[in-house]
Amino acid sequence: MADKIPVGVLGATGLVGQRFVSILADHPWFSLEVVAASEKRVGKRYGESVKWYIDEPLPQQAIDMVMARPRPESFKPVDVVFVALPKEVAGPLELELARMGKIVVSNANVFRMDPDIPLLNPEVNWDHMSLVKLQRERRGWRGAILKVPNCTTAILTLSLKPLMDSYGIREVYMTSMQAISGAGFNGVPGYAITDNIIPFISGEEEKVVRESRKILGKLSGDAVSFADMRVVATTTRAPVLDGHLESVVVRLEKMPGDIEEVRSLLDSWRSRPQHLRLPTAPEKPIIVRREEDRPQPRLDRKSGRGMSVVVGRLSQPYPDEPVIRYIVLGHNTLRGAAGTGVLIAELYYRMFEEGAVG
Amino acid sequence: MADKIPVGVLGATGLVGQRFVSILADHPWFSLEVVAASEKRVGKRYGESVKWYIDEPLPQQAIDMVMARPRPESFKPVDVVFVALPKEVAGPLELELARMGKIVVSNANVFRMDPDIPLLNPEVNWDHMSLVKLQRERRGWRGAILKVPNCTTAILTLSLKPLMDSYGIREVYMTSMQAISGAGFNGVPGYAITDNIIPFISGEEEKVVRESRKILGKLSGDAVSFADMRVVATTTRAPVLDGHLESVVVRLEKMPGDIEEVRSLLDSWRSRPQHLRLPTAPEKPIIVRREEDRPQPRLDRKSGRGMSVVVGRLSQPYPDEPVIRYIVLGHNTLRGAAGTGVLIAELYYRMFEEGAVG
Amino acid sequence: MADKIPVGVLGATGLVGQRFVSILADHPWFSLEVVAASEKRVGKRYGESVKWYIDEPLPQQAIDMVMARPRPESFKPVDVVFVALPKEVAGPLELELARMGKIVVSNANVFRMDPDIPLLNPEVNWDHMSLVKLQRERRGWRGAILKVPNCTTAILTLSLKPLMDSYGIREVYMTSMQAISGAGFNGVPGYAITDNIIPFISGEEEKVVRESRKILGKLSGDAVSFADMRVVATTTRAPVLDGHLESVVVRLEKMPGDIEEVRSLLDSWRSRPQHLRLPTAPEKPIIVRREEDRPQPRLDRKSGRGMSVVVGRLSQPYPDEPVIRYIVLGHNTLRGAAGTGVLIAELYYRMFEEGAVG
Amino acid sequence: MADKIPVGVLGATGLVGQRFVSILADHPWFSLEVVAASEKRVGKRYGESVKWYIDEPLPQQAIDMVMARPRPESFKPVDVVFVALPKEVAGPLELELARMGKIVVSNANVFRMDPDIPLLNPEVNWDHMSLVKLQRERRGWRGAILKVPNCTTAILTLSLKPLMDSYGIREVYMTSMQAISGAGFNGVPGYAITDNIIPFISGEEEKVVRESRKILGKLSGDAVSFADMRVVATTTRAPVLDGHLESVVVRLEKMPGDIEEVRSLLDSWRSRPQHLRLPTAPEKPIIVRREEDRPQPRLDRKSGRGMSVVVGRLSQPYPDEPVIRYIVLGHNTLRGAAGTGVLIAELYYRMFEEGAVG
Repeated sequence: MADKIPVGVLGATGLVGQRFVSILADHPWFSLEVVAASEKRVGKRYGESVKWYIDEPLPQQAIDMVMARPRPESFKPVDVVFVALPKEVAGPLELELARMGKIVVSNANVFRMDPDIPLLNPEVNWDHMSLVKLQRERRGWRGAILKVPNCTTAILTLSLKPLMDSYGIREVYMTSMQAISGAGFNGVPGYAITDNIIPFISGEEEKVVRESRKILGKLSGDAVSFADMRVVATTTRAPVLDGHLESVVVRLEKMPGDIEEVRSLLDSWRSRPQHLRLPTAPEKPIIVRREEDRPQPRLDRKSGRGMSVVVGRLSQPYPDEPVIRYIVLGHNTLRGAAGTGVLIAELYYRMFEEGAVG
Repeated sequence: MADKIPVGVLGATGLVGQRFVSILADHPWFSLEVVAASEKRVGKRYGESVKWYIDEPLPQQAIDMVMARPRPESFKPVDVVFVALPKEVAGPLELELARMGKIVVSNANVFRMDPDIPLLNPEVNWDHMSLVKLQRERRGWRGAILKVPNCTTAILTLSLKPLMDSYGIREVYMTSMQAISGAGFNGVPGYAITDNIIPFISGEEEKVVRESRKILGKLSGDAVSFADMRVVATTTRAPVLDGHLESVVVRLEKMPGDIEEVRSLLDSWRSRPQHLRLPTAPEKPIIVRREEDRPQPRLDRKSGRGMSVVVGRLSQPYPDEPVIRYIVLGHNTLRGAAGTGVLIAELYYRMFEEGAVG
Repeated sequence: MADKIPVGVLGATGLVGQRFVSILADHPWFSLEVVAASEKRVGKRYGESVKWYIDEPLPQQAIDMVMARPRPESFKPVDVVFVALPKEVAGPLELELARMGKIVVSNANVFRMDPDIPLLNPEVNWDHMSLVKLQRERRGWRGAILKVPNCTTAILTLSLKPLMDSYGIREVYMTSMQAISGAGFNGVPGYAITDNIIPFISGEEEKVVRESRKILGKLSGDAVSFADMRVVATTTRAPVLDGHLESVVVRLEKMPGDIEEVRSLLDSWRSRPQHLRLPTAPEKPIIVRREEDRPQPRLDRKSGRGMSVVVGRLSQPYPDEPVIRYIVLGHNTLRGAAGTGVLIAELYYRMFEEGAVG
Repeated sequence: MADKIPVGVLGATGLVGQRFVSILADHPWFSLEVVAASEKRVGKRYGESVKWYIDEPLPQQAIDMVMARPRPESFKPVDVVFVALPKEVAGPLELELARMGKIVVSNANVFRMDPDIPLLNPEVNWDHMSLVKLQRERRGWRGAILKVPNCTTAILTLSLKPLMDSYGIREVYMTSMQAISGAGFNGVPGYAITDNIIPFISGEEEKVVRESRKILGKLSGDAVSFADMRVVATTTRAPVLDGHLESVVVRLEKMPGDIEEVRSLLDSWRSRPQHLRLPTAPEKPIIVRREEDRPQPRLDRKSGRGMSVVVGRLSQPYPDEPVIRYIVLGHNTLRGAAGTGVLIAELYYRMFEEGAVG
């Protein structure tokens, strides 16, 4: 990988787009060559177009990039296109880019449940990447569409995966307290959220229920058979800038030895992205904290550069039943969006080299 | 009830104490005669001693009241003492006041689980008031100790009661997002809670589990047999001033007809305090909202002058099983503390007149 | 005034519009007959159309009102139209309504500096109402356009008026910390304002400078001669829901006796609306607080039902110069918008009865 | 400087103490050897004793340090002691440490106005360091007490220094909006500051007035003659975690060319710490931003690793008078406390090497 792979970001000025730019501007494998957002920004410098809301400085090399048109043609020079557009406009563009042969890594809520499109949370279901073969056969394109899951689901499923593998999961009750940034820069008015909680996020609970069953599903032949677990999800918006916190109760199939066993299981768990040493993979996908009052969004959201989820308050509410309770926190625009997007692209190239993508 | 019943507040300057003063200063049955808090405030005027944080003005008649010593003797002139002290100091004082013949209505977390002390959420378990007879026999005092439940539990059990009566309850999963005021004025530093959630409240989950089983328990003979339901509670602190929001999943014994039936059940439910027209009883103990994004703490916490709980987002997550999901919100220092305290005192006097207390 | 005067609100669903509806639904002189907002709401019930954000309940009589078209014709049945529309659309509608003979009381930032249009903060410059005569002559209409000042300016000038009358004002330095509601419901994203201050509000400082000089100006003949004082204004947005707080330093013409004299002057000051006992006039236009840490937005914004301004921290920074320093707080959508709008209408009718309007 | 200079922190667990630890744990000149806080923490590991609230991780080498007794003896092994204790306890300890020969760099509000104790904001008055000679002569000790200014004053005076040098300053009007962290972890209750501003900070305004005149004063012989400028300061507390924002109006002695000249002056200004390349000195002491809505606390407080102040909204309110207006922001626990403390120690050693301290 002597030369860097040229990549672009479509939807580069929103909160997720800014995270893509921030990660890609300093990436060992990828070189950020094209940025685009809305039509009205075309021709302006990125540094002028964006209201930069990340607390690290806007990368020097991105400041002077000229905003391209938000059209497929703009991305001819690159191999990978990261998409952070609203779903209304993303769909047709993604299809066209894939037809042009591009690797499309998309955060948009469209095509996620298509059977031949992998919905990837790399540590959890890296093997679903091989759906790309099927996708290319069926759709007749050389490119690929690879989907980033819903943010809440990405955080939840990462915490569930080792539990599923070791004990089996029958049922999950999850209540989330989600950050403002999850709705985009203009998504939640200050007048609505100050001194308040909004106990509803449109479409979110449905996404958690269906996407978690796909992500935790088993690849058999060229199809994913959905995980046979039940999920009850209640999602709320809290006055927090970044970091989704989820209160989780899981009914397992099998009784764990004790809660310490569960702690060790989660904290020591590593997966393919760690073994492959992918640049964006955190050292520990799951960090278990033993303090009684952690994780907290403001203190823990940057753990593992925003790519680890942090689990705390692990306990067994019932003495004789295989039920565990915990809190999990993840950074919604990193593990829940842009970070996972870049990790997916890294995984694609490693698996491609290994011949696993076809 | 020609003459008003003289009452006092012990712990009158804290956030709950202020609510007691606010309600009692303008009460049709009770006359506020004594206020006391810490030793260092003795002899000062209430208006000078208190940092008034309620958005209605400090009642004129309370401003000039002189703070008494926080000792039982100070309360000789009154019949009822409302206690809003920390549990460390409350216990011995409550015992002494009861021995002096006072009706002690206490918010302090002590004696709540004693078998002969009623833990009262009046709409839910008004009949437990008759434990006072037993209490007087056993303890040999003329007074009484009546306990206000934990705030989160008061809100939860009010929403559960009609469900229990109509369908039976097997299991409850509850995650709370609790207001800052629940920890008292100095309880949560601004630096800790801004842009944050703290997923732990010391002792709270245990209180929810055990108190809810007592409150929803059945009185048989002179004992309460605890409700045979299981509760998993996760409690968190959110950057909200007042109003606890709870995300609830309930596994019922019996399948409800449909979700509309459940809505009607809750919204139309009335109990003894409503039938007795107690002054502090809200017209509707439970208000069901049908908007997809309600209840919200800031918008709904004052419903029924803070004495109603507001239920929203009612749904059945599974088509074929008796499980319902909802959000419930209540005002933690009114329904969850001072308001319920005053309601208990009102109930006591009505039931006493009826000969139900003995 | 046996029959109530029929009135309407144009722009009834925004934060200021809601305040108009809240005040007018229960007004002794006015009867709310027409509500209108955007085209897309036409024909819906007000109760369905509005996201009600006021903590008093939506008035029963308003809930079922049917939203009219936002056109002048809709307001034929009423005598007074309160306007809470953005300035882009307000101007032409106001002109047409005035031509139809309506009394237009408008919050929109248009026409405010026109010489024949009174910009009214009733306690401060009630006498400017007589510009209506000139306006009618010049414009040849029977109606009238009466303007509510910018919110920050209304609060500031109310605190300045007694100082100007007693001591003269040479220069004012003002820094504001303004509430989120001042920008309208969607005006300030939650992601922008949480844990932050935004030190800029578009156009605001210019409004403070020019409007304060008109409001505090003297009516001579049929023109207002602007106050000869200098104003340096810096305006910022703070994470506060309602209530603008202003830090003020005033260089007076004349040395006050001492700071206690200034306190008395402000606290005891009454003006025409108080003498006329106008229904929306607060008992005290200015409330002086002596505590070292008041006024505070959350605790004081409802003073005088939101129509008083609260002044605190009065001091003289220099021993020998006529300079005073203070903090003033006012409710931005009541004193700063809808409340003052209704007060203007009340003043108009009283002065009309007296023959002062012509 | 082959071997690192051993240093200690007294008051290491508070918000400022944590910043000292964070900077010193990775410092090129200093080696953190001793940490102490309250008696009750003695013997515990630092990592257990501290509630770490900084968003960078707790430095590995600090985690296992054992907390020493908060007594002078504990600091025998070190040359420099950084003090972040409350003023009540700091005074006697500082005197004893200086007598022991230690270089005491202290954030505590005691001795700041003593004529022989330098109150240092290094870029502004590095030359005041030579007061150490006088101090040692008078007090007969080998050590030294060097004072960090009040946070608000440090930020203000850094922005004023180039103005004073180029134009002279006659008068300053300053209103601050200060962060919660300025009051320490428990200093501002969440219930007090949410949806609120508190327009008073005890003692703060007096500190700004007197300390700024000392810091900007001229060293002549062995005394500082205070700057002959007048300051009117109003200080408030805002719901912001870190970063003090100040609205400033300055009446200069001399008319600047135009506002662009002032911008260049501030932005290009460098001082001794920059020329000496002190490790904690920011590249630019003052960063001028031209966007209309900057600086903002959340976005700009980390500029120059928290050691730059950021100036925006520069303008001339009057066409013909030498008055300028701007907003300045600085990180209150870095530029306003621990960062400046470390910078002072660096300056001391460089000036000592040059023979400038004696």
